[in-house]
Amino acid sequence: MSFRVELTRGDLVESVHRVSAAVVTPDDRLVAAVGDPGLVTYWRSAAKPFQAMPLVEDGVLDHFGLGAEELALACASHSSEAVHLAVAERFLARVGCTEGDLACGPHLPLGAGVARDVATLGTTLTPRWSNCSGKHAGMLALARHHGWSLTGYEAAGHPCQQRILASVCQWTGVAADRIVIGVDGCTTVSFALPVRSMALAYARLGSSPDPAARAIREAMMAYPDLIAGAGRFCTDIMRAMPGQVIAKIGAEGVYSAVVPAAGIGITLKVEDGDMRSSGVALLALLRQLLPRLGGPTVPATGLEAYERIPIRNTRGTVTGEIRAVGELQLPGL
Amino acid sequence: MSFRVELTRGDLVESVHRVSAAVVTPDDRLVAAVGDPGLVTYWRSAAKPFQAMPLVEDGVLDHFGLGAEELALACASHSSEAVHLAVAERFLARVGCTEGDLACGPHLPLGAGVARDVATLGTTLTPRWSNCSGKHAGMLALARHHGWSLTGYEAAGHPCQQRILASVCQWTGVAADRIVIGVDGCTTVSFALPVRSMALAYARLGSSPDPAARAIREAMMAYPDLIAGAGRFCTDIMRAMPGQVIAKIGAEGVYSAVVPAAGIGITLKVEDGDMRSSGVALLALLRQLLPRLGGPTVPATGLEAYERIPIRNTRGTVTGEIRAVGELQLPGL
Repeated sequence: MSFRVELTRGDLVESVHRVSAAVVTPDDRLVAAVGDPGLVTYWRSAAKPFQAMPLVEDGVLDHFGLGAEELALACASHSSEAVHLAVAERFLARVGCTEGDLACGPHLPLGAGVARDVATLGTTLTPRWSNCSGKHAGMLALARHHGWSLTGYEAAGHPCQQRILASVCQWTGVAADRIVIGVDGCTTVSFALPVRSMALAYARLGSSPDPAARAIREAMMAYPDLIAGAGRFCTDIMRAMPGQVIAKIGAEGVYSAVVPAAGIGITLKVEDGDMRSSGVALLALLRQLLPRLGGPTVPATGLEAYERIPIRNTRGTVTGEIRAVGELQLPGL
Repeated sequence: MSFRVELTRGDLVESVHRVSAAVVTPDDRLVAAVGDPGLVTYWRSAAKPFQAMPLVEDGVLDHFGLGAEELALACASHSSEAVHLAVAERFLARVGCTEGDLACGPHLPLGAGVARDVATLGTTLTPRWSNCSGKHAGMLALARHHGWSLTGYEAAGHPCQQRILASVCQWTGVAADRIVIGVDGCTTVSFALPVRSMALAYARLGSSPDPAARAIREAMMAYPDLIAGAGRFCTDIMRAMPGQVIAKIGAEGVYSAVVPAAGIGITLKVEDGDMRSSGVALLALLRQLLPRLGGPTVPATGLEAYERIPIRNTRGTVTGEIRAVGELQLPGL
């Protein structure tokens, strides 16, 4: 059976989430796939490490005295926890900016606990609450460092976004005229390209001796709590496998990851954009892949919340579950 | 191109929702289809009119002095608006029951405005707030009328559910041993059967001279505001086409409808369970179908919110849309 994520009710499959995925080596060999690894879709927030590359390459971090925490937050889809807001504020202050310079708008926090607290307390949400506020702070830093206008830094025509596009092209190996540009939920550029090319970029992120790649992978692995937040898969798998994996979610069912010791990058897209099932899919794919690639083992415990997500009725009784089934295709193994 | 619902971002399709649907006459002729009309899935809340049939057939309404409003609410997935709670309370009182007898648990109201108010006010949600409280009140009425135990009325083994199963078998034409039983979100029985058989039941609901079918279709058409609520598709299409259509949503991407003058019942299932796209799919299918069947016209205005749903970023700019594309198959036309 081809790999997919199912939602069950009793003994029957009620809904199905189809998946396309590519598993690629740093030298662009496709070692495994699901569905259509050539599928062109938006990378969404899983592109953030490559949107942050110019911060290292262009000397922006050094110029403003920014450290690994700010770099991690630039790569994050954070949960709007207090620590995330604090790092975002410090980031902006070091760049000489304020929250008013951020182009992103706020939204209900991605962290379930934070979202509950916000509703209970009636908290007013402002742009630094955006899960993308670190990425936007980085774009402001890039613009200020180069002396570009801060106004409109988020738009496709701005030199800031041209510089970032060059980074995305470099790491994905896709020419700029083959990348489709859309507007992301946070107002800045979103890049559409083949899932396989996204996986290649992650494979390179995990193995490249390039100082910028090393700085980003070390920052993301050092601060998993900044990359997402409590009770979210990116954070929990990076904590369960410290120094062994980078995992980064994107909206509409995208997930990218790299396991350097296994020599592979991976990206998956849930066809219908479902966000509950993308982490379930990534965990199941890693469990299938890593033993065959001689990579590190995904721990047997600590990630139960993502193995099978129980579906409960309004009295709390479990009526079914979300689970991954089927095998990925291994053309190159 | 086969019929589907797409989510776009800029010029690109970002996510796809696959659909299976069946369009059936009251004499069980399949006049049109999408995907797999034989797909077996859970009917969820779109089964409610047939779960309510025994209330008319067994004389329960007359016995307790219940009217068309209570019957409509028994067929509803209501938004927990004040009027819904009031009818639910009156329904329970006439049956000699209280909210404490309801087996369903509460949940965040399906009406967006009500959900916001509840969060703002910190309202304590209780079982009558369940979108299914009318259905459950009806089950309590059925149990009390027949002298069956009120305790456990929601469970598959209870005579109440055996009676309702007989109704579902009668209207769908599917034998009891071919119907898969699951537990619904509201704790009671959910029925899995072919989408085509669900469409047949709706076709019969719309045309049968049977007094119970007539009472239910008249109640649903007379009180569209009770069937769902403000800003929801079931209510809005029934208000836009008064006396011409019954539309009933089910969870996990199910929608059933009947257009008596066109001589068809219809049921669709969004494969991945998405709830934003099921109404978009139903409206698009009705727009394609009804002119070919000589049925009533879906009004050109008043349903714009369901033709294309704009996707906005966190600053309110439209970045894409949810829209139906492609043609349904018309094997029998």
